[in-house]
Amino acid sequence: MTEATPRRRGRPPRAQSADLPAARDRILDAAREVFSERGYDKTSVRGIAKAAGVDPALVHHYFGSKEQVFEAAVSVTFAPAMDAPKAIEEGPLDGVGERLTRFVLGVWEDPVTRTPLLAVVRSAVNNETAAAVFRRIIATHVLRRIVARLAVPDAELRAELAAAQLVGMVMLRHVIKVEPLASADPEKIIARVAPVVQGHLTSP
Amino acid sequence: MTEATPRRRGRPPRAQSADLPAARDRILDAAREVFSERGYDKTSVRGIAKAAGVDPALVHHYFGSKEQVFEAAVSVTFAPAMDAPKAIEEGPLDGVGERLTRFVLGVWEDPVTRTPLLAVVRSAVNNETAAAVFRRIIATHVLRRIVARLAVPDAELRAELAAAQLVGMVMLRHVIKVEPLASADPEKIIARVAPVVQGHLTSP
Repeated sequence: MTEATPRRRGRPPRAQSADLPAARDRILDAAREVFSERGYDKTSVRGIAKAAGVDPALVHHYFGSKEQVFEAAVSVTFAPAMDAPKAIEEGPLDGVGERLTRFVLGVWEDPVTRTPLLAVVRSAVNNETAAAVFRRIIATHVLRRIVARLAVPDAELRAELAAAQLVGMVMLRHVIKVEPLASADPEKIIARVAPVVQGHLTSP
Repeated sequence: MTEATPRRRGRPPRAQSADLPAARDRILDAAREVFSERGYDKTSVRGIAKAAGVDPALVHHYFGSKEQVFEAAVSVTFAPAMDAPKAIEEGPLDGVGERLTRFVLGVWEDPVTRTPLLAVVRSAVNNETAAAVFRRIIATHVLRRIVARLAVPDAELRAELAAAQLVGMVMLRHVIKVEPLASADPEKIIARVAPVVQGHLTSP
């Protein structure tokens, strides 16, 4: 293959490969934005490339298929949930229900984190491929780390039912917006939800 | 207005008004099917009319706007949940958590009821208008009847957090399909979820 070959496939063109890490980040930022705005179904690799100001071949080169770009974009979106609050897992086990509930509520109260999360939830509810990506991320990152600390039978099922309480709370409060839950004081919600999450995870 | 007036607006044409109740039911059935298949955003009154084999004017005549057809279709979809299982509410209060959990799981295990429910959930997650309809139905029918029986403070918030546990369970088991929850024995789930629902509703 020479420089004369059409630039659509294979390695990125030389001019762009000079600032590869920057281009990769730019694609990822663009992907998050485009997936957030349009949802999984209406997003194309071409649209992401356009938003990032790069050739679509470069998107394929770094990430592969649309599904793989989505997985990378979702992983970045969930990075705060997966990496920042180590305290959730590392603190005493008998307070993990409250730490987890506070964290999830906090992430959804903040519009900066809520918007991309809402896009991920919408995509996962609407599209089987997006649901598979969401599932893989939940299973391999979020739940595994909590499950690893639980010395109980059915640790995975317990963690998922705890997650179900939190997912349902978010759905009714922030997505469907049912009152009085949608406007309730977070502390009031925490007082009721944290013991449930704790019970799912650690009760005998 | 005479018979010569164009048939697009106003009262239904005479030929159709002979079997009005049948036409109304046919429109409602068509609406449920079309909303199920295409979701709220991609459904039009014209598309519903076509599927029902009637003039769009007849749809407007009976139901009004697309939002109102959707509300009627969703109400019909939820009718079993709202009317059939009176036993859920009427049995002893200390078993309401288990009856409610069994009922919700049962409805979602059955493909006949699962498909239209899934369509409603998808529409509500994606579209603000559909979410408002869903919200109104939850508030006025499903929750109010349970709340009326609870002699506790914050009865509405409690009922919504109980609903949140069930909504989250359905989301992770039937929509996102996270394992092991997606394949878990219903009895195993009931054993863990029913006490939580009961606790939300009636614990001191």
